[in-house]
Amino acid sequence: MTNTVYDVTTFNGTVSPQTDIGKVINEIIADIKSKQTSQNTRPGAVIYIPPGHYDLLTRVVIDISFLTIKGSGHGFLSRAIHDDTSDTSNWFEVQPGSSHIRVKHTDGNNEAFLVQRSGAPAEVGRLNGVVFQDFCIDGVASTKPYVEGNHKIGISVQSDNDSFRFEGMGFVYLTQAMVVRGADACGFTNNFVAECGTSISLTGASQVAKITNNYLISAWAGYSVFAENAEGILISGNTVLWACNITLINSNRCTISANKLLSNFPSMIALTNGSSENLIFGNHFRRVYGDGTSTRYDDLFGLVHINGSDNAVTANQFSYSVPAADITPSGAAPTIILVAGGNRNYLATNNIRANLDVKVVLDSSTTKTKLLYTANGDQLQAHTNDYALVATP
Amino acid sequence: MTNTVYDVTTFNGTVSPQTDIGKVINEIIADIKSKQTSQNTRPGAVIYIPPGHYDLLTRVVIDISFLTIKGSGHGFLSRAIHDDTSDTSNWFEVQPGSSHIRVKHTDGNNEAFLVQRSGAPAEVGRLNGVVFQDFCIDGVASTKPYVEGNHKIGISVQSDNDSFRFEGMGFVYLTQAMVVRGADACGFTNNFVAECGTSISLTGASQVAKITNNYLISAWAGYSVFAENAEGILISGNTVLWACNITLINSNRCTISANKLLSNFPSMIALTNGSSENLIFGNHFRRVYGDGTSTRYDDLFGLVHINGSDNAVTANQFSYSVPAADITPSGAAPTIILVAGGNRNYLATNNIRANLDVKVVLDSSTTKTKLLYTANGDQLQAHTNDYALVATP
Amino acid sequence: MTNTVYDVTTFNGTVSPQTDIGKVINEIIADIKSKQTSQNTRPGAVIYIPPGHYDLLTRVVIDISFLTIKGSGHGFLSRAIHDDTSDTSNWFEVQPGSSHIRVKHTDGNNEAFLVQRSGAPAEVGRLNGVVFQDFCIDGVASTKPYVEGNHKIGISVQSDNDSFRFEGMGFVYLTQAMVVRGADACGFTNNFVAECGTSISLTGASQVAKITNNYLISAWAGYSVFAENAEGILISGNTVLWACNITLINSNRCTISANKLLSNFPSMIALTNGSSENLIFGNHFRRVYGDGTSTRYDDLFGLVHINGSDNAVTANQFSYSVPAADITPSGAAPTIILVAGGNRNYLATNNIRANLDVKVVLDSSTTKTKLLYTANGDQLQAHTNDYALVATP
Repeated sequence: MTNTVYDVTTFNGTVSPQTDIGKVINEIIADIKSKQTSQNTRPGAVIYIPPGHYDLLTRVVIDISFLTIKGSGHGFLSRAIHDDTSDTSNWFEVQPGSSHIRVKHTDGNNEAFLVQRSGAPAEVGRLNGVVFQDFCIDGVASTKPYVEGNHKIGISVQSDNDSFRFEGMGFVYLTQAMVVRGADACGFTNNFVAECGTSISLTGASQVAKITNNYLISAWAGYSVFAENAEGILISGNTVLWACNITLINSNRCTISANKLLSNFPSMIALTNGSSENLIFGNHFRRVYGDGTSTRYDDLFGLVHINGSDNAVTANQFSYSVPAADITPSGAAPTIILVAGGNRNYLATNNIRANLDVKVVLDSSTTKTKLLYTANGDQLQAHTNDYALVATP
Repeated sequence: MTNTVYDVTTFNGTVSPQTDIGKVINEIIADIKSKQTSQNTRPGAVIYIPPGHYDLLTRVVIDISFLTIKGSGHGFLSRAIHDDTSDTSNWFEVQPGSSHIRVKHTDGNNEAFLVQRSGAPAEVGRLNGVVFQDFCIDGVASTKPYVEGNHKIGISVQSDNDSFRFEGMGFVYLTQAMVVRGADACGFTNNFVAECGTSISLTGASQVAKITNNYLISAWAGYSVFAENAEGILISGNTVLWACNITLINSNRCTISANKLLSNFPSMIALTNGSSENLIFGNHFRRVYGDGTSTRYDDLFGLVHINGSDNAVTANQFSYSVPAADITPSGAAPTIILVAGGNRNYLATNNIRANLDVKVVLDSSTTKTKLLYTANGDQLQAHTNDYALVATP
Repeated sequence: MTNTVYDVTTFNGTVSPQTDIGKVINEIIADIKSKQTSQNTRPGAVIYIPPGHYDLLTRVVIDISFLTIKGSGHGFLSRAIHDDTSDTSNWFEVQPGSSHIRVKHTDGNNEAFLVQRSGAPAEVGRLNGVVFQDFCIDGVASTKPYVEGNHKIGISVQSDNDSFRFEGMGFVYLTQAMVVRGADACGFTNNFVAECGTSISLTGASQVAKITNNYLISAWAGYSVFAENAEGILISGNTVLWACNITLINSNRCTISANKLLSNFPSMIALTNGSSENLIFGNHFRRVYGDGTSTRYDDLFGLVHINGSDNAVTANQFSYSVPAADITPSGAAPTIILVAGGNRNYLATNNIRANLDVKVVLDSSTTKTKLLYTANGDQLQAHTNDYALVATP
């Protein structure tokens, strides 16, 4: 019978995996395809990447279902701390490790891994159950805030897909870590993304993605999670740092819960372009001031920004501590929650602690917002009369 | 020393694993037992299932502790989409994959895996730390809604057990995916169950099961999670779809939190037969109308149905969108929460969005229900005067 | 190229792993260091522990980054049930299993695994990405409540560290299971800790630890989670039993959410020494009376004890059931939440069910506590007038 377990270090490729792991993995995929030749005999395979440093010169293209690529550790080491330290000559390690892929394309591509298969209608090309597990994708060199730093993308899925998994992965110094177009039931769990531009990007229209139990640490020009036209994402139990920015565009019935969120910037969660019926509850929002500068949002944008209807923002803790001198526009009262548009948004039992006079703001177009024990009377700034307030005593 | 690492493809069994993986695993278990012969020398073993298609003709019977059965991927592919597509001749894959077991018993049994060991008193037979990880159990052929479709059961645990694990598994086209009787500290995490009748069934009396971070996608005649006489289940961070139905019978002090729930039917969470002191909070309930028909519950049953006391239903979002013509009984105002019995149930800061006039209903036998910012005055339908309402403004 | 995959049973060590797995792992680490000799060629390695019983006579010292130590199962079996049973002669297994390490030092140390590397400044010694996964550390013999029972420690990390992982591990009969000093982004997930003194201890100052999806079962003299000077811990989705005691000392902006908590004793969550801006929400607190006795706290200490400011305690369920005769001091009304000190603590939509007259207590030094639908008028015991109450109807 056919062996379905590959190891990049023992596969007889045309180059060594240290020289170009991309080429090796492509050759393994070609080998799998040469052996799995009918539609009923394609269970896929597992490709193991043992601990080691591997350069990737050639983009991997995955066009088979049920492929698991697996290493033995996310291997994170802070490249930024390294780059910011004047003398690292006595350090023991100076780059990431474990099953560590250094992205150094010589083929003109940006993606380390591209998952794509064509077919019409979409079901024909649809890919199922591809798994990325426990290895490290490293952009090697970049500069803050990493977006457009090196244009490198860790993993990009660009055709119809179902039940993919991203688990235990490490990502560092990439413009984008994970991009999935048209995701159906795509799970991201236990990953460690740090020093990247954007951590997770769900483009096209996605359904019921699940983003749980991750560290997502990205800088101020990208996004922690970006989604457009999404239905029913679950974002729960994550620690999201540095420039936490979860932006949902025209996305509905998502839930963002029980996350620890920290940012040096406004727009920690934004529901835009009519995003409706989302639930934001039980998150801890910490806003400080420090590493990085950005003019992308000013302090009137809101830590939570809502432009949509029937969203619930419940039982969150806001801990705001920014020096008055660092507020923009100068002298403004920073906005904790901005309801910029929409009807019947429901804000209940949120607790705000701030070093400054901060506001919950309702723009003039909004109607029937309910504020229940979310702000005291002084904290509400309503540019409409069409709301209900039960003030925090 | 004794080797404790087995691979179904390299073990010298009497049949090939492709022919009957059930027989091979039983022979491996017999081999383990022949080598681990005293009560102090039974650490168990790990059985690896590489990617491949394997038929199971013979039921596996596990009667040793500390056995790990492990593959390299959940391998899900939608058999229903396949069966519903008229022409799949140009598809690349037409069945599930990765470490893929096709359940095709010729031994008259229903369970692919039965875990059972006798002994009296119960501690004698008690099994510990069995693990099912990262493989696919596939019922091969079935019809919606899968209950009584083929009578097949993925894994059934039928004797006293402690600290079992179900992780990263895939299940498809089974009447029941996982059944555990008398579970103590049984963990279900990161599984992908789809197109099954019932996803998880906790029969007998269980203690502190933990169901986290799963996709549970089952049809309208079974259950997403069924439990009877359970104490302290934690159901958190799951995405539960299609016909979300979590039913707890005489079960107490459970918590159902931070889940994304979607159903085409009523009874998304039911606490029945006196189930008390449970906590249902921070869930997103989405009710739509579409695939499937069922007369099991009408629209007066409630998306949340409570017959018990001192339960808390807090900070949930309800998003209801069903055409008026599809409501049963015809013309009725659909029930979002039905408190059918019990005392002192506590409903607070729930947000309801509905396309129809919907109700929160208190039956006549109920007492001292508290409704705090959970319904507006028009939405409450109380068949008792013994309640307290703070209406949503 | 260098092999980075080790197996303790095939490595050519000076002793067998059954005799002293500690010595074998130290020899493997020495081998790794002899082969990874420059700061750019240290990706680490993976050490596999197959199922088996292994004695550890020598402490393992880990002083390299990116080491993964991995087994095939947590292997838990209740040593306490075994020790409490008069006749176990007919049991099938009588000790834990899977990849099972018995801690039996002959070297005078307490830690099975010590992770430590010196260096000044701290970045020089800083260790990254060490992973402990899926094996069992067993203290072999102990007595309840396990603290100071045998002084044994499972894993202790004592120098600067980043992005460590503890996953799928089992711990039993240890004074301390996991101790991490100065943790940065340290993840604990899916572990099974039982019959230990303290489950997780975060000493020194830590940042953004993440404790998710674990079973933590410890006795009454230690802690489920102990942290001092911590910033931003996320404790979510855990089942914490027996003597649930999460104590945060001078720790800020942590979140404790969606956990199932059970204890036979007071002090289930304590925020002390000015711990502020923490969020405790959506937890299920079950307090009973039974196994074990302790004078550490009396029933006036609170199931939740707060001495700090701006903490939010929201949407929790409290289920209290202790015989009146077992309350200390005798005749006292037990305290559910004690605000012992601090300002502006925010308690909202908590539901209390108790068999006795219980209280939410505000000490005299506290100011501006808000109690919103958390207690009825009779349940509030305020030793100050500086608070706001919206009583549960």
